[in-house]
Amino acid sequence: MQILTEPQLRSLIKLDVTLIDSVADGFKALTDGNVVMPDILRLDIPDRGEVDVKTAYVKGVQSFAVKISSGFFGNSALGLPSLSGMMVLLDAETGLTKVLLLDNGYLTDIRTAAAGGVAARALSRPNSHIAAMYGAGLQARLQLEALTLVRPITEARIWARRPEQAQATAEWCEKEYGLPVQAYANPAEAAKGADILVTTTPSASPILLQDWLEPGQHVTAMGSDAEFKNELDPAIISHASLYVADSLPQTTRLGELHHALESGLTIDPSRSTELGAVLNGNHSGRRASDEITVADLTGTGVQDTVIATMAYDLWKKTTL
Amino acid sequence: MQILTEPQLRSLIKLDVTLIDSVADGFKALTDGNVVMPDILRLDIPDRGEVDVKTAYVKGVQSFAVKISSGFFGNSALGLPSLSGMMVLLDAETGLTKVLLLDNGYLTDIRTAAAGGVAARALSRPNSHIAAMYGAGLQARLQLEALTLVRPITEARIWARRPEQAQATAEWCEKEYGLPVQAYANPAEAAKGADILVTTTPSASPILLQDWLEPGQHVTAMGSDAEFKNELDPAIISHASLYVADSLPQTTRLGELHHALESGLTIDPSRSTELGAVLNGNHSGRRASDEITVADLTGTGVQDTVIATMAYDLWKKTTL
Repeated sequence: MQILTEPQLRSLIKLDVTLIDSVADGFKALTDGNVVMPDILRLDIPDRGEVDVKTAYVKGVQSFAVKISSGFFGNSALGLPSLSGMMVLLDAETGLTKVLLLDNGYLTDIRTAAAGGVAARALSRPNSHIAAMYGAGLQARLQLEALTLVRPITEARIWARRPEQAQATAEWCEKEYGLPVQAYANPAEAAKGADILVTTTPSASPILLQDWLEPGQHVTAMGSDAEFKNELDPAIISHASLYVADSLPQTTRLGELHHALESGLTIDPSRSTELGAVLNGNHSGRRASDEITVADLTGTGVQDTVIATMAYDLWKKTTL
Repeated sequence: MQILTEPQLRSLIKLDVTLIDSVADGFKALTDGNVVMPDILRLDIPDRGEVDVKTAYVKGVQSFAVKISSGFFGNSALGLPSLSGMMVLLDAETGLTKVLLLDNGYLTDIRTAAAGGVAARALSRPNSHIAAMYGAGLQARLQLEALTLVRPITEARIWARRPEQAQATAEWCEKEYGLPVQAYANPAEAAKGADILVTTTPSASPILLQDWLEPGQHVTAMGSDAEFKNELDPAIISHASLYVADSLPQTTRLGELHHALESGLTIDPSRSTELGAVLNGNHSGRRASDEITVADLTGTGVQDTVIATMAYDLWKKTTL
């Protein structure tokens, strides 16, 4: 059985426009009903962590991924990574394993950022140039990188609960992406005048408030992948000109939408849709430059199948 | 990352009383509420096959398994195995992968048979000596082997839809287990006078009928692990002196119980329980030698965690 390790995968596949295009195709297939995607399997280890298993079969794609990812919050105290994971790629004709992708979460990191790129490209104003990132972890960096691939970003801001981490990430991004990037101590200030706002935290209570938003902004919340996580003020969902889910069945259970619905807020069906519907033209998407659009990303098995299949195909080419 | 292959696993761990005891402990923990076991994740690949993912965390056990198993019915025409699978064993403290068990379904085969052994030891009459197996595949062989480990079996019978396969399996078992084993053309005849009856097929309609049963018999149905599978006449469930599930939440959805309930039959709560409740003495189990007992086994993640942890521990010992 073929095994690809994290270093091999890092050299094979990167966050780039090709990946963003492939993830976009996955979202289109999902909305078009060309994907079989069961509910996420979630195992909670009491007081320690959680394991998620995601999978999806995309019609016409020759393989599908089963992804196992774990998050154990006490690991950092042990000097171990909190998040880890691997993917198993199975042949869609025979169910036999094609390859094990021992990526330690790398593929998840970049397919998650790629979805942020898909959302910003589909929903933000084309001339968006100021990005405000909430959170200062790896996804803040990668989501910013994805934005630079799809929009003419000339300035970025980083707010984080811990100012020193915001500062460090701002410096890293400034050097890495060749942009002015500033750490902000005040999250409301960071929102002022920003074109695209991306929340990337595991927060359990809102870090971005409705009062801070301005006409024309696009917001992507990518941190909520579990019932208790909540980054956006529920009023943002109910007031948005357009609410866009990666998968409505998932965001209804796990995403920011779930918190808005729990708060008793309602959302006009004509102002809510899936990313795939905007991408394939079944929904008009943003209709005016002063609209506020919101993307709610919970992470889908279809993204895993897309990136795992891409990685396998790229590896096959290197063996020819 | 450590990887153990099928040949390594075959030499490390076998179907024996130790495994049966460990699986029994797993069922006790499940019934006692010491297991976190999410619903099985099931992905259907239309017209081709299915993939199941099972997992369970058992309190106090240092690791837990995530098992991926696939069944693709067109594979035999391609000269490939229909069933395949692998297990990933994760550390229960950190969520990090301890070992990949590339067992091609071997561990599933023997932990499934071990559950049959657990059920027969807990529910059949101690002097049971005639076993009737329905189905002539690998599980028919292994389930019979498990019975020989827990009861003084002196005679076995094999019925299968295809007589030539029943004959071949009877010959194989006779040689392997040192017992007289006869192929039966008539399934009702095979039931007559048998002490333990085990159904091991993927049948979608009943292969064992209520009319054929006799007082004192024990029936184990181990083939139903999906909504459409159904081996037992629903009347067997409703007439049994005692109905015992491996996991009531699972058999209500997937097992023989599910078909009985769908047929509108009811079952007296005092006559239904879980295997773990009988094992730990919370339910009296069989109360008389003329009772008919039925075990409904759908296969649980707890069995996977038990066997994967055992395999890892046995392997660790060999490396000392």
